[in-house]
Amino acid sequence: MTKLAPHAKLKIGLPPGSVVYVGKKDNRPTRITLIDYDPQNVTEKTITTIEDCVAFKDRKSVTWINVDGLSDTDLIAKLDSLFGVHPLVLEDIVHTDQRPKMEDYGDYIYVVLKMLSCGAKPSEVVSEQLSLVIGSNYVLSFQEEAGDYFDNIRERIRKDKGRVRRMGADYLAHILLDTIIDNYFLVMENFEEDVTSVEDRLMTQKQIGVNEIHRLKRRLVVLRKQIAPVRELVGGLLRADSKLIHKATEVYFRDLYDHIISVMDTIESFRDIVSGLHDIYLTSINLKMNEIMKVLTMISTIFMPLTFIAGIYGMNFDHMPELRWEYGYAAILSIMLAIALLMLFYFKRKKWL
Amino acid sequence: MTKLAPHAKLKIGLPPGSVVYVGKKDNRPTRITLIDYDPQNVTEKTITTIEDCVAFKDRKSVTWINVDGLSDTDLIAKLDSLFGVHPLVLEDIVHTDQRPKMEDYGDYIYVVLKMLSCGAKPSEVVSEQLSLVIGSNYVLSFQEEAGDYFDNIRERIRKDKGRVRRMGADYLAHILLDTIIDNYFLVMENFEEDVTSVEDRLMTQKQIGVNEIHRLKRRLVVLRKQIAPVRELVGGLLRADSKLIHKATEVYFRDLYDHIISVMDTIESFRDIVSGLHDIYLTSINLKMNEIMKVLTMISTIFMPLTFIAGIYGMNFDHMPELRWEYGYAAILSIMLAIALLMLFYFKRKKWL
Amino acid sequence: MTKLAPHAKLKIGLPPGSVVYVGKKDNRPTRITLIDYDPQNVTEKTITTIEDCVAFKDRKSVTWINVDGLSDTDLIAKLDSLFGVHPLVLEDIVHTDQRPKMEDYGDYIYVVLKMLSCGAKPSEVVSEQLSLVIGSNYVLSFQEEAGDYFDNIRERIRKDKGRVRRMGADYLAHILLDTIIDNYFLVMENFEEDVTSVEDRLMTQKQIGVNEIHRLKRRLVVLRKQIAPVRELVGGLLRADSKLIHKATEVYFRDLYDHIISVMDTIESFRDIVSGLHDIYLTSINLKMNEIMKVLTMISTIFMPLTFIAGIYGMNFDHMPELRWEYGYAAILSIMLAIALLMLFYFKRKKWL
Amino acid sequence: MTKLAPHAKLKIGLPPGSVVYVGKKDNRPTRITLIDYDPQNVTEKTITTIEDCVAFKDRKSVTWINVDGLSDTDLIAKLDSLFGVHPLVLEDIVHTDQRPKMEDYGDYIYVVLKMLSCGAKPSEVVSEQLSLVIGSNYVLSFQEEAGDYFDNIRERIRKDKGRVRRMGADYLAHILLDTIIDNYFLVMENFEEDVTSVEDRLMTQKQIGVNEIHRLKRRLVVLRKQIAPVRELVGGLLRADSKLIHKATEVYFRDLYDHIISVMDTIESFRDIVSGLHDIYLTSINLKMNEIMKVLTMISTIFMPLTFIAGIYGMNFDHMPELRWEYGYAAILSIMLAIALLMLFYFKRKKWL
Amino acid sequence: MTKLAPHAKLKIGLPPGSVVYVGKKDNRPTRITLIDYDPQNVTEKTITTIEDCVAFKDRKSVTWINVDGLSDTDLIAKLDSLFGVHPLVLEDIVHTDQRPKMEDYGDYIYVVLKMLSCGAKPSEVVSEQLSLVIGSNYVLSFQEEAGDYFDNIRERIRKDKGRVRRMGADYLAHILLDTIIDNYFLVMENFEEDVTSVEDRLMTQKQIGVNEIHRLKRRLVVLRKQIAPVRELVGGLLRADSKLIHKATEVYFRDLYDHIISVMDTIESFRDIVSGLHDIYLTSINLKMNEIMKVLTMISTIFMPLTFIAGIYGMNFDHMPELRWEYGYAAILSIMLAIALLMLFYFKRKKWL
Repeated sequence: MTKLAPHAKLKIGLPPGSVVYVGKKDNRPTRITLIDYDPQNVTEKTITTIEDCVAFKDRKSVTWINVDGLSDTDLIAKLDSLFGVHPLVLEDIVHTDQRPKMEDYGDYIYVVLKMLSCGAKPSEVVSEQLSLVIGSNYVLSFQEEAGDYFDNIRERIRKDKGRVRRMGADYLAHILLDTIIDNYFLVMENFEEDVTSVEDRLMTQKQIGVNEIHRLKRRLVVLRKQIAPVRELVGGLLRADSKLIHKATEVYFRDLYDHIISVMDTIESFRDIVSGLHDIYLTSINLKMNEIMKVLTMISTIFMPLTFIAGIYGMNFDHMPELRWEYGYAAILSIMLAIALLMLFYFKRKKWL
Repeated sequence: MTKLAPHAKLKIGLPPGSVVYVGKKDNRPTRITLIDYDPQNVTEKTITTIEDCVAFKDRKSVTWINVDGLSDTDLIAKLDSLFGVHPLVLEDIVHTDQRPKMEDYGDYIYVVLKMLSCGAKPSEVVSEQLSLVIGSNYVLSFQEEAGDYFDNIRERIRKDKGRVRRMGADYLAHILLDTIIDNYFLVMENFEEDVTSVEDRLMTQKQIGVNEIHRLKRRLVVLRKQIAPVRELVGGLLRADSKLIHKATEVYFRDLYDHIISVMDTIESFRDIVSGLHDIYLTSINLKMNEIMKVLTMISTIFMPLTFIAGIYGMNFDHMPELRWEYGYAAILSIMLAIALLMLFYFKRKKWL
Repeated sequence: MTKLAPHAKLKIGLPPGSVVYVGKKDNRPTRITLIDYDPQNVTEKTITTIEDCVAFKDRKSVTWINVDGLSDTDLIAKLDSLFGVHPLVLEDIVHTDQRPKMEDYGDYIYVVLKMLSCGAKPSEVVSEQLSLVIGSNYVLSFQEEAGDYFDNIRERIRKDKGRVRRMGADYLAHILLDTIIDNYFLVMENFEEDVTSVEDRLMTQKQIGVNEIHRLKRRLVVLRKQIAPVRELVGGLLRADSKLIHKATEVYFRDLYDHIISVMDTIESFRDIVSGLHDIYLTSINLKMNEIMKVLTMISTIFMPLTFIAGIYGMNFDHMPELRWEYGYAAILSIMLAIALLMLFYFKRKKWL
Repeated sequence: MTKLAPHAKLKIGLPPGSVVYVGKKDNRPTRITLIDYDPQNVTEKTITTIEDCVAFKDRKSVTWINVDGLSDTDLIAKLDSLFGVHPLVLEDIVHTDQRPKMEDYGDYIYVVLKMLSCGAKPSEVVSEQLSLVIGSNYVLSFQEEAGDYFDNIRERIRKDKGRVRRMGADYLAHILLDTIIDNYFLVMENFEEDVTSVEDRLMTQKQIGVNEIHRLKRRLVVLRKQIAPVRELVGGLLRADSKLIHKATEVYFRDLYDHIISVMDTIESFRDIVSGLHDIYLTSINLKMNEIMKVLTMISTIFMPLTFIAGIYGMNFDHMPELRWEYGYAAILSIMLAIALLMLFYFKRKKWL
Repeated sequence: MTKLAPHAKLKIGLPPGSVVYVGKKDNRPTRITLIDYDPQNVTEKTITTIEDCVAFKDRKSVTWINVDGLSDTDLIAKLDSLFGVHPLVLEDIVHTDQRPKMEDYGDYIYVVLKMLSCGAKPSEVVSEQLSLVIGSNYVLSFQEEAGDYFDNIRERIRKDKGRVRRMGADYLAHILLDTIIDNYFLVMENFEEDVTSVEDRLMTQKQIGVNEIHRLKRRLVVLRKQIAPVRELVGGLLRADSKLIHKATEVYFRDLYDHIISVMDTIESFRDIVSGLHDIYLTSINLKMNEIMKVLTMISTIFMPLTFIAGIYGMNFDHMPELRWEYGYAAILSIMLAIALLMLFYFKRKKWL
C-alpha cells in the first residue's frame, strides 16, 4: 500500500539544502541524455559528466537534459554551480516525497510533480517523481528511473511533428506536463473500470469483500493527494507572469489547466460514488441477514405447533379418548398437514417465500 | 451507465492541437446548414464544402453555421485557415469529452458544453457535446448528431419572432445557450419525478431495490459533473469584457446566469434528499427485520412452554398421580390454553401484535 | 410535497422575455390596489386598468401599486411601455418559480423572493412569489394571490405610524421585505416546534415513523432553497450603490441583512439536528431489536434444557431405575424448577431482565 | 432545551425600530450603575433616572454605565434623545434573541453578544445577552439580569490594577469582551468534561443512553450558534478603522481575536469527536446483539440434537432393540454427554465462549 | 488523553497581560543558555540572571537565548523592560495553551507553536509549547522543559555546518521552525504506522476494539488542532513584509510553507481513511452476526423436522400400524437420515456451509 506520510527519518537534523536521496536504493546508475534542437537541427547525446551540458547552455537552441536515476547526489549537487540552481531545489529534486508545486526563481522555474502510470498488475498505479527546471532556453528533467514515458516527445522533436521545434523551452515544458496529465486520464479510466467492476458485482448480489471497497477508497485518497496540488501548480504557471513563459505558449498552459480541472472533477465524482458503495454493501449484508432470519422463522413457525401437537398425544394420561379412537392417528396427521399448509399459504401471502 | 472518466487512450502521445474524433463512430455524414439573416432578409442553405461559408463571413448580416456530426475531422481542421480558429479549439470540438468551459480568443469566444435531453427510455438522459465559436458576426455551432434541438430557434429567425433578427451574433449565442439550459430544467423535472417515485414507494413500505437509489445517486453525480461547470462558463461570458458581447445583450446573459444558478440549487437540494433516501432504506430493512424477529419470538414464547408441559406428562414415571386423574387431560389442556392466551395478552400489551 | 425543480415544460422553445404565467390556474381575477402618500396626504384606490396608475408616476409622492393575481399576462406585459420595465423582468414576475434575486436596472431595481407563511394545516408552509419593482418614487409589488400579508403596512401608512410617511419608496420596499423576513422567523419557530416534538417522542421511545424525519429533512431542504438566496439578495441591495437607495435607509437594509443571516444560522443549526435525529432513530430500532432478541434468548435458554430433561424421562428404555422410584417425579420436577430459577438468576445478573 | 429559532411572534407587524422587550418577564426592576474614572479619580453611583448620566457624557473621564434588566423599555427608548443612539440599536438591545454582531454608527459602535456561564446544575449553560454602546469616552452596557459577571473589572478600576485607568473607553470595552470570551473557555472546559465522561463510559461498555449523545450534539449546536458570529464581531472591530478604537488598544483586540479563534477551533474539534461518539454507540449496540445471538445459538446447538435423541427413544415402535438392552439407558446418557462436551469444545475453539 | 479545551480557570478575572504560568508544576528550575555567533566566533554561556543577556543585544552578532522552563514568571516578566517585549506576549509565553500564531510587533516578531515528538510509549505524542521572539539580531526561545530538541542546531552553529553562521537571526528562526516541522513528519509517520496496523488487523478479520479506532480519530483531531494553525503562521511570516525577514531567507520560509502544506495534506488524507475504518468495523460486526445466524438457522432447520417425526411416533394412539411393523424403527431412522442429508446438501448449494 502506498505510504501517505512522507519519509521523515532520513532528514531530521540536517541543514536545509542538504541533497539527500530518499528513494529506492536499487536504482540503475544515473543516465543523462541531452537533446538540443532548433527549427533546423537536432543533436542527441548521451552524456557521462554533467559538465558537458554547460556548453549547450549559452546557445540559442533549446536544450533538454533528462536525468534518469537520482542516487548520484554528487552529480546533482553540481547543478548549483553549473546552472545556478538553488540548493533548496536540488534538495527537493532528490527528496522523492515532494508535494507537487511550482516555484519561480526568476532565472528558472522549478516544477515538481508525480508521473502516474498503470502498473503491470491490475489496479496498480506506479508513481514516480518528475522534477523540471525550466530555464530560458533549456529544460532539465529529473526522473527516478529510466523509462519510455517521454519517447513520443523525443520522436516528435526528431521528426518535427506538431510545432515543438519552432517553439521555445516553455513549450517543451508544456508538452512534458501535457504527457503526464494525459496519463492521469489513463489512470482515472483504469480506476473507473475497477469501480464499475465492484459496482456491478454489488448490484448483482455477488460475493465481494469489504476490503475491496476500502482499497478503492484508499487508492482514491492517494490519487487525490498526488493530483490535487497539480491544479495549483498549473494555475501558478498561468499566473506566473514570468519572462520565461511566452505569450504564445500561455494558451497551451490554459489548455493544460482545463485538463487538470477535468481530472479533479472526475476524482470528486468518484469520491461520491465510492462513499456510496459502502452504504450499498452494508445494506446488502442486512438484506442477506433478513433472508436467513426469514428461513429460521418459517421453520420455527411450521414445526413448533406440529411438535407441540405430537407432544400432547405423547402424554400418558389414562383418560385421553382420542387415543382410543380408531381413526385418531389419521385424523391428527391430517390436522397437522392442514396446519402446515395453512402456514405456507400465509407465508406466501406475506411474500416470505 | 455514463462514463465518468474522459476517454484518454486515443490521445496519449499526440501533440497538442491534434484534431482526433473520440465519439461514436456510426455517425451519419457531417451535415452543414447555414442561416444568414439581418432585420430584412433570411437566407438558408445546406452546404457541402465548408469553403462556401467564407463568403458570408465578411457580410454585415449574422451568419449561423451549424455542423452536425464531427467524424469528418479534415473538414473541421480547415476552420483554422478559413476562420482563424486555434488548433487547440478544433481539438476540443471533436474531442467530445470536454469539460464545459468558455475561452476568449479575442476575435472569437469558444464555448463548449453538454446538451442534455430526456431520452426515449424512462429516466434516460441523452448527453451530446455542443461547441460554439462566437465571432463578431457569425456563430459556428458543432453538434455530435443531427437533431431538432434548435428547430424552434430557426423558426424564430425565419418568422422574426422575439428580437433575434434585430440583434447580433452574441444574442444568437445567448438563445442557443438559453435553449440548452431550459432543457436542463426539463432533465431536472424528469429526475425529480424519479426521486419522488422512489420516495413514495419507500414511504409506503413497497418493495424497492438498493440499486435504484444508487442509480439515482450516480445519475446526480453525472448531471452535476456536466452542469456545474456551466455556471462558471456563463459567469465567464458575463465578466468577459469582450467587444463581442454588446452592452444590450449582457442583461440576457445575466438572466442565463440566474437560470443556471437555479439549476445548481436544485441539484444541491437533490443531493441532500437522495443521500437521505439511503438512510430511510436502511431503516426500513431494519424495521422489516424487527417484524420478522417479533414473529419468531412470539412463536417460540407461546409453544416452548406448552411443548415443555406436554413433555412432562409424556414422562414414564410410575408415580405420576395426575395421569391417573379422570379430568387430568382436560385440566392440562385448559392450563395450556390459559398460558397461550396469557401470552397473547402480554404481547398485545407490549404492542408486538 | 413542494416541487424542487422549477416548471420547465411550459417555456421550452419560447424566446426570452415571453410573459407566460406558470402558476395555479384557478386564481381570482387580477386585482390592483394603489396607495399614494406623502407626509401630508394618503390616497387609496382600487384600479381596474393599469393605465390609471401612470398619472401617479410623475408626482413627488410615493406610490405603491400592488397587483394580486398574475394570470392576466396582457396587463403585466403593458408595464414595459408604461413604466419602462424590461421584458425579462416581466417574464420573471409571472414565472412563479424564480430563484430569489435582485437586479439593478438603473431606473428601477427588480427584487423577487418567496413570501412564506404557516398554512392552515399543522407543519404546512405556504409559499408565494413576491416581485418588487422599486423605482425612485414608486414601488410595484406583484403577488400570486390576494391576501392580508401587508395589511399592517397599509395601516401604518394610513395612521402615519413609524416613519414610513416621511421616507421614500426605498423605505417602503424595506418594510415590505422586513415583513417577509419576519415571517421567515415565524416559519422557523413553527419548524422548531415540529423538530422538538419529534425529538421528544424519540427520546421517550414513543412510536415514530421514519417518514416523519424524512419529511422534516425535505421541508428543511425546501426552506433552505427558498431562503438562502435572500441573503445574497439583501446583500446585493446593500452593496448596490444605486441612487434609488438613500443613505438614510441603508442602515435599515443592514438591519434586514442581520435578520436574514440569523434565519440562515437557524437553518444550519436545524440541519445538524435533523441529520442527528435519523441516527437516533436507527439506534432506537436497534435497541428494540436487542430487546426482542433478549426475550427470545431467555425463553430458549430456560425451556430448552427443561424440555430435554422431560424428553429423557419420556424414553421407553426398560431399565430406567429413576422411573420406578416413588419420588422420582417429584425429584425431577424440583430439579427442573431449580434449573429455571438458576437461569433467571443468571439473567438478572447479566442485566437481561 | 435552548430554543434555536428566535422569538418572532411578538414583533410581526411592528415598524422597524420598535423597542419591544422579548425576554423573561419576571425580571427585577431595571438597575443602573455608573462608574466614572480617569487616572486620578473614580466615581461610583447607582442611578435612578437615566437623565442623570448625561452630565458625565461631556467630561473627559471615561464613563461606564451598566444597565441590568431590560424590561423598562421606556427608559431605554430615552437613549435615542440622550445619547443619540439609533432606534434600531435600541430595538436590538431589548430584543434578546440577537445574533452577535458589531455595527459602526460613526459616533458610537454597537456590539451585541451572548455572555455564557456554567449554570448551577451540571452541564447547564446560562446564556444572557450583553449589548455595548461604545462611544468616544463612555461605554453603555446592557445586561438582562443583574449579576457579578463584571465585578472583577469594577475592582480593577477601583484599585487601578492593570492599565485600565490610564486608557480609554475602547480599552474598557475590550476588557468587558475579554471577560466574556474567558468565560467561553470555561464553558468549553465544562463541555469537555461531559464529553470525556460520556467517552469513558462508552469505552468501558457501561450503560449510556443515546439521548446523552444527542444532548451533547444539541448543546454544541447551540454553543456554535452563539459563539461563531463573535469571531466576525471581533474581526469587525479589528478592521473597523474607527476613530473610537485607538492604535494602542488594537493589539488587545488582536489578542481577543486569537482567543475567539481558539474557542472556535475547540468547538470544531468537539464536533468531530461528538459525531464519532454516535458511531461508537451504534457499534456497541451491535456488539451486544452479537453477544446475545451467540448465547442463543449455543443453547440451540447443544440442546436440539440432545432433545432429538431423547425423542427417538421415546418412540413407541415395537421393535427397538436398544430399549430392551440393560445398559441402553446408561449408554444413551453417555452419548448425550459426549455430544454436549464436543459442542462446548467446538465453541471454545471458535472463540464463542 | 490530551485536553482539547485550553485551561481557563486560572486566568478568569485577571487583567490582560498578566504573566501567569498554567503548565505542569513539577518543572525543573528555569535554565537559560545563550549562544552568540558571527561568521568568525561562537560564544556559549549558561546564564543565571536574565540581565546578563542585555549586553549581547546591541552587538552585531546573532544572539540566541534559549529559556527552558517557564515556571519562573518573574524572570519572564523582566523581558518587558529588558527587550521591550509587550506584556501580552509575555502572558502568551507562559500560558502554554496557546493556539499557534505569529504576531508582528514591528521591532520583533512573536511566534508560538507546538513542538511535537514521539513519546516513549508507542503511539504517544509529546506536545510542548515553543515561543520565539525574533528580533533584528537576536532570537529568544522559550520551552516548557529542557530537552535535546535543538542539539543538532547548536552543533551546526558550533561547527559552522550549512550556512547558519553567515546568515542572520531570521535564518536562525527558520531552522528552529524547520526542525519542529520535520518532527511533525516523524509524528505523522508514526501515526501512519498505527493506522496501517489497525487497517491490517481489520482486513484479516482479527479482533480489534472500537476504542482503538476512536482513539486514532481523537489523536488526529488533536494533531489537526495543533498543526493546522501553523500553516497560517508560516504564511503570515511569508507575507509579513517585515524588515526583520530578509529577502535571502524568504525562499527558506517558502520551503517551510511547502512542508507544512504537505503535513496538512497528509492529515486530511488520514481523516478520510480513519473515518472509513469505522465503516469497515461496523460491517465486520454485521458479517460476524450473519455467520452466527447461519449456524443457528442450520441447526434449527435440521433438527426441528427430525424432532417432529420422533414426536409423531411417540404418540400413544392405539391404532398406529407403523409401530407394529417389524422394520418400522429402521425405516424411520433411515428417513430421518435422508432428510438430514438433503438439508445439508441444500445448505451446501445455498453456500451456507
